[in-house]
Amino acid sequence: MNKITILIHCKDRSGIIANITSFIAKKDGNIVYIDQHVDREQNIFFMRLESEFDSDEFSTESFKECFKRDLAEKFRMKWRIYSSEKKPKMALFISKYDHCLYDLLGRYNSGELNLEIPFIVSNHKDLEHIAHNFDIPFYHIPVTKDTKSEAEDQQSALLQEHQVDFIVLARYMQIVSEKIINQYPNKIINIHHSFLPAFVGAKPYHSAYKRGVKIIGATSHYVTEELDAGPIIEQDVTRVTHAHSISDLIAKGRDLEKIVLANAVKLHANRKVMVYNNKTVIFT
Amino acid sequence: MNKITILIHCKDRSGIIANITSFIAKKDGNIVYIDQHVDREQNIFFMRLESEFDSDEFSTESFKECFKRDLAEKFRMKWRIYSSEKKPKMALFISKYDHCLYDLLGRYNSGELNLEIPFIVSNHKDLEHIAHNFDIPFYHIPVTKDTKSEAEDQQSALLQEHQVDFIVLARYMQIVSEKIINQYPNKIINIHHSFLPAFVGAKPYHSAYKRGVKIIGATSHYVTEELDAGPIIEQDVTRVTHAHSISDLIAKGRDLEKIVLANAVKLHANRKVMVYNNKTVIFT
Amino acid sequence: MNKITILIHCKDRSGIIANITSFIAKKDGNIVYIDQHVDREQNIFFMRLESEFDSDEFSTESFKECFKRDLAEKFRMKWRIYSSEKKPKMALFISKYDHCLYDLLGRYNSGELNLEIPFIVSNHKDLEHIAHNFDIPFYHIPVTKDTKSEAEDQQSALLQEHQVDFIVLARYMQIVSEKIINQYPNKIINIHHSFLPAFVGAKPYHSAYKRGVKIIGATSHYVTEELDAGPIIEQDVTRVTHAHSISDLIAKGRDLEKIVLANAVKLHANRKVMVYNNKTVIFT
Amino acid sequence: MNKITILIHCKDRSGIIANITSFIAKKDGNIVYIDQHVDREQNIFFMRLESEFDSDEFSTESFKECFKRDLAEKFRMKWRIYSSEKKPKMALFISKYDHCLYDLLGRYNSGELNLEIPFIVSNHKDLEHIAHNFDIPFYHIPVTKDTKSEAEDQQSALLQEHQVDFIVLARYMQIVSEKIINQYPNKIINIHHSFLPAFVGAKPYHSAYKRGVKIIGATSHYVTEELDAGPIIEQDVTRVTHAHSISDLIAKGRDLEKIVLANAVKLHANRKVMVYNNKTVIFT
Repeated sequence: MNKITILIHCKDRSGIIANITSFIAKKDGNIVYIDQHVDREQNIFFMRLESEFDSDEFSTESFKECFKRDLAEKFRMKWRIYSSEKKPKMALFISKYDHCLYDLLGRYNSGELNLEIPFIVSNHKDLEHIAHNFDIPFYHIPVTKDTKSEAEDQQSALLQEHQVDFIVLARYMQIVSEKIINQYPNKIINIHHSFLPAFVGAKPYHSAYKRGVKIIGATSHYVTEELDAGPIIEQDVTRVTHAHSISDLIAKGRDLEKIVLANAVKLHANRKVMVYNNKTVIFT
Repeated sequence: MNKITILIHCKDRSGIIANITSFIAKKDGNIVYIDQHVDREQNIFFMRLESEFDSDEFSTESFKECFKRDLAEKFRMKWRIYSSEKKPKMALFISKYDHCLYDLLGRYNSGELNLEIPFIVSNHKDLEHIAHNFDIPFYHIPVTKDTKSEAEDQQSALLQEHQVDFIVLARYMQIVSEKIINQYPNKIINIHHSFLPAFVGAKPYHSAYKRGVKIIGATSHYVTEELDAGPIIEQDVTRVTHAHSISDLIAKGRDLEKIVLANAVKLHANRKVMVYNNKTVIFT
Repeated sequence: MNKITILIHCKDRSGIIANITSFIAKKDGNIVYIDQHVDREQNIFFMRLESEFDSDEFSTESFKECFKRDLAEKFRMKWRIYSSEKKPKMALFISKYDHCLYDLLGRYNSGELNLEIPFIVSNHKDLEHIAHNFDIPFYHIPVTKDTKSEAEDQQSALLQEHQVDFIVLARYMQIVSEKIINQYPNKIINIHHSFLPAFVGAKPYHSAYKRGVKIIGATSHYVTEELDAGPIIEQDVTRVTHAHSISDLIAKGRDLEKIVLANAVKLHANRKVMVYNNKTVIFT
Repeated sequence: MNKITILIHCKDRSGIIANITSFIAKKDGNIVYIDQHVDREQNIFFMRLESEFDSDEFSTESFKECFKRDLAEKFRMKWRIYSSEKKPKMALFISKYDHCLYDLLGRYNSGELNLEIPFIVSNHKDLEHIAHNFDIPFYHIPVTKDTKSEAEDQQSALLQEHQVDFIVLARYMQIVSEKIINQYPNKIINIHHSFLPAFVGAKPYHSAYKRGVKIIGATSHYVTEELDAGPIIEQDVTRVTHAHSISDLIAKGRDLEKIVLANAVKLHANRKVMVYNNKTVIFT
């Protein structure tokens, strides 16, 4: 059984859905998921569709060609088609904090994540033993002001060599530069330890403490050149009181960060996220 | 501009979506919302679709006829089609608690609810003044053990006279009998003041207090003959601690009840709920 | 039975709690609630204490004098003592939005709020009928750029005449000036329709929509001269998705605003809030 | 600096707090935390107090003796006094599910948990490698119907040998018998994968799916002889929809179970839980 996922966006006009679903029907596909969204302000149509084909002769590549010729050009669609056989490859960038790392690797080990992790990169050696425990190759690439550019070249080489599809910054603590961002547009997932757009930048828990907020949050977003301003994938929050110290906020925040990052990774790996106009459409 | 909402369920098989969307396209309709769900255990297909038709000659009645002939019979669909012009009529059954009543009428007044309220019925006169303040006809129909059957006949007569589409029990505190339930299957909405199925029956806050739960809830569900066991439409919860007394739980619960009931009413009035197998499919 | 509530803050040092509780014991008081907090960064001690005295000869005034002489001066306390007999008086400032008004008056009517509402003020006449329905005096005081100062004089006069203890801005939509703020320091409660400090200022739902957040919030805070920067009393949030339009955010936000403002009002009226360093200590 | 935590409950009467705080003051202690609760239905007074003593001559043992003689007997208190120097010892009972195990060990490793883990016991060998990765002794004690009694003797021997203070069943999947429960009354923490009291017993996610609930939960409670009916320590919930399959509920539930169990473990290890009448008082 072949299964594909189709993501489309284009200018909205009538007849799009009928055209797409008839096209699938003509190819003997069975639609098992369809969801759409229309941004009425921008007049943009978004769709996510999963279809199964049980013919032995089905080929994703030739389906793509037909789709492009018969449908995509007519409606001027931006589109992506994925075969469910191919698991996306995710590179993990880490630094010294281990909570998101343990959480993602625990999920990975138990089969919860539909992806492969070819390697882990860190600018420090502190968490190397965890990578070893989980049998995942670990690369130590130190980053200093002077060596940042070379370090990113090393990172780029690794990413290409392993044909990485997307990058997860699991509390990586370094600003990723334009060079990497341009290679992975809307494909680098960061976890920011506040409820964005409140408290952008460094030390958000300290800022939250000082402002006396009653709720703290965490935000997972795609990395863009502007710091902490990329499209938001997932957010969650938890209550705090005057009795919580900064270190309490940090401890409570760790639990949020783990869950929010893991959810964002799952949404991305399952091709449920579309980005438009610096915002996400999340098909669940 | 004519707008209709279509709700369908039938046995799942391939080609349904393509057939429906092509049918709409042939009628020059523009699909503005489509969502579907397949219950894989039961192999049942559910769909909700909104479509606009800008022809002057469009008639919902003749559309229904075509739909039935060309589509519904072929796929053995259960279906409902609503014109967006017709607002559903909701009867409010109340007793002595005013918080859900104030909340619903406040929303009604501010235009938030897409429905009409032809009248309010109560077995007590305590809240009659609120109905008057909001200019809604109020009927006092007392209910005792001996008069229950006659009271329900009076209620039935009112419901028929005003062509009521659905009933909301806003803390009505009386068990509605089979007679009314059979006239309004999956069309009577109740608010139960606990997180069902925990604490069915009377005095759920007392039971929650005794059990020492850390979270209390409220549940809005359709009324079926088995008490508090009908299809769940909406639930919400809030945290409590050992420091909360029973009356604290009741006060906190009131806020939950208001929000949960209002959300259920909106979902139902906007034709976003389908019921199957004592469960709901909620299209949002 | 006489019952008082004591709120204290002072520099932390050892023996404070023992001194206070012994003082109460010597006066034959029975402590029914005690909670304390130490801000370790600032080294400030906060306490809230409720005590009952069943002697007929008990007088809150003479208790206060003793407390001041024997205790407060020794520890250089800032303190407030309230008799539970005296309900605080709350003035309501409103404009054109009715949802917070309906919610507060519904609670007031059902006895949920431990306070009195001597009057409602508005710069518009739109909601006058609601004040009448609930039998509360309504004053229409229009505010324009040119008349703002005079309008505030009229408001001041009303506040003094009715011996108002605190003010609630129930979506008042006007900036309250220094003149009123200085008369009611940390006694003017505002509801801001965002999760502060995200989206300060006007049109926060529009900003939230544009940023593509997945959670929206509401914040109740004391009014200070800096806009939306006063001590936060209560916050709450709810989830939103890409499918929600700005008007959906506004509708969902209304429910948050009602609950958050009502909770803040209850905390303040029950003397459970202390303010220090632009933050609140909330004793629950 | 010596620091102790005192937990007390007794019949409520006036003067208790003053007596306790004066006693501490006489011993030159500085109270850094005090919180109390009165169950007005049962007329029971509960208190948790932390105090620091900076004298070199302070001894927890002699303090306990004085406390018992001068205070506890007078008020007929049930009391416990802990030195903060002594970390409690927690035994982990596991089976085949690894998510709670990874989560607790990750927190343990990062220093978040104020406790020691002398060993892990399992009735299966599946997760032995995880214990090894974290350098914690692992004992494989198989349990069958016929060998259950012997297996529990082996467990008991291990618990005594390592002077274990409390037991955590991290998805242990076996019913612990009276023998162990009586040795560890209110000291065995279980995680139940539903929002108790809804869905007690086995397969709660299947029951939740069948009932069509819109929210699922997890509950951590002390183990008593009646299944899933012990005092609740912590609960949390998350939303689900009709679109979630049973396996989706299980996956979402895993995240709840991890967080809820970890929070319960922290509350217990930090001596913040008191049990009375099959309910908990949680001092936070």
